[in-house]
Amino acid sequence: MERSTSIHREITAAVLVIGDEILSGRTQDQNTAYIARYLAQLGVDLREARIVPDVADEIVAAVDALRARYTYVFTTGGIGPTHDDITADAIARAFGVEIGEDPRAMALLAKRIRPEDMNAARRRMARIPKGAELVANAISAAPGFMIGNVVVMAGVPVIMQAMLDAAAPRLATGVRVLVATIDADAIPEGRYAAELAQIAEADAGVAIGSYPSFTSAGVRSQIVLRSRDAGRLEAAANAVRALIARLQTDGTPI
Amino acid sequence: MERSTSIHREITAAVLVIGDEILSGRTQDQNTAYIARYLAQLGVDLREARIVPDVADEIVAAVDALRARYTYVFTTGGIGPTHDDITADAIARAFGVEIGEDPRAMALLAKRIRPEDMNAARRRMARIPKGAELVANAISAAPGFMIGNVVVMAGVPVIMQAMLDAAAPRLATGVRVLVATIDADAIPEGRYAAELAQIAEADAGVAIGSYPSFTSAGVRSQIVLRSRDAGRLEAAANAVRALIARLQTDGTPI
Repeated sequence: MERSTSIHREITAAVLVIGDEILSGRTQDQNTAYIARYLAQLGVDLREARIVPDVADEIVAAVDALRARYTYVFTTGGIGPTHDDITADAIARAFGVEIGEDPRAMALLAKRIRPEDMNAARRRMARIPKGAELVANAISAAPGFMIGNVVVMAGVPVIMQAMLDAAAPRLATGVRVLVATIDADAIPEGRYAAELAQIAEADAGVAIGSYPSFTSAGVRSQIVLRSRDAGRLEAAANAVRALIARLQTDGTPI
Repeated sequence: MERSTSIHREITAAVLVIGDEILSGRTQDQNTAYIARYLAQLGVDLREARIVPDVADEIVAAVDALRARYTYVFTTGGIGPTHDDITADAIARAFGVEIGEDPRAMALLAKRIRPEDMNAARRRMARIPKGAELVANAISAAPGFMIGNVVVMAGVPVIMQAMLDAAAPRLATGVRVLVATIDADAIPEGRYAAELAQIAEADAGVAIGSYPSFTSAGVRSQIVLRSRDAGRLEAAANAVRALIARLQTDGTPI
């Protein structure tokens, strides 16, 4: 899908959130938005996200669909010590590789877990697919891992964030998307939509979105412009600013 | 996928979040968790969620994949008056039906928008695929709609929530999943994982998850049990409570 006329190589990504607790509504997923903003800083475009339950077939199918399509896939959740943590095994199945206790992962666990506290459940956290590189983190003993183009991380946000920091230096990076946000304040979308569409159509290299919010003061909208080209972004943003300024001083009914 | 030994007919659902602003991290999606909890009250299982950009091909592909697989698909986003609101047209394409200005939708818009304020952008909000039923809402003029097993709703949470209220009476409902939540407090998952797995394996009709959180007081975990059978839920919950109580009074090292 061509979304820009840029000649830069596009680095794309998908997030795969794994966990019954997200689909039941028990837990609000915050990792996707965090990863989205983090990747944006690296010039990596998040193109899709999926949430699947703790069911091996579902995880395998989603990983396979996403890894074939995007430069990277980031998974969150399912790598702890309990029976519902099945992500590592599912990833091994998706890649068709063996999985077993990884000596490097066992060494990391041994730094945090005393020998007398080590047990089968904790050793499960050292199960890593063959061929994977570990993704250590400063918060918990158990590592994530990277295999092929898939980065497998914890679901707990502080641990996931530490793993993302550890994985980032190994990722290919792209040209960052530049963003301009313009407040349309209380001007209704229906008043500026036609002219905004013209501005959007004039340059396919600038993506423009309009986002109303319901606030205590009433509906307030923002217009967000995104491009990898600073000059084209600024030209489109100036056109939008002029449109909004005109409507703000325009006395016709909304 | 058989996830329960229940003989009840399962009513399943997927959420499809449509919007560049979610994938850029600008906006935190809250609709998926709200819909998940809402559907749970109706006995409808949310099985999957996807987030796709404002790109017609992506919307069509996701709608087609999800509607073939689940009882219902709930989409959010992309039904406003601006150029980036392309959901209605994409849904019409997915179903292979015509789309045009719907007189019923125009009548709803006319209740809120004065004739002198009506314009082409606002009329776009009355574009509804042929054969769809409208899903009105008390907050805004523009309706969502339901076509086949797909419910198309706004992205702004208060409007989405009103549309879900309007659509709910038309949905088939199932037997509600009952939930028991047990605090494991500071007991590490690695201490109870093996016995918890035994409890989980003893009854496939009770799904059990373990969820650590990082709090200012340290790591705290909760165990969540879910089942449609009250007796079996209670039996498993009692087994978990006994396990946690024993570990809380057990002096061995964690």
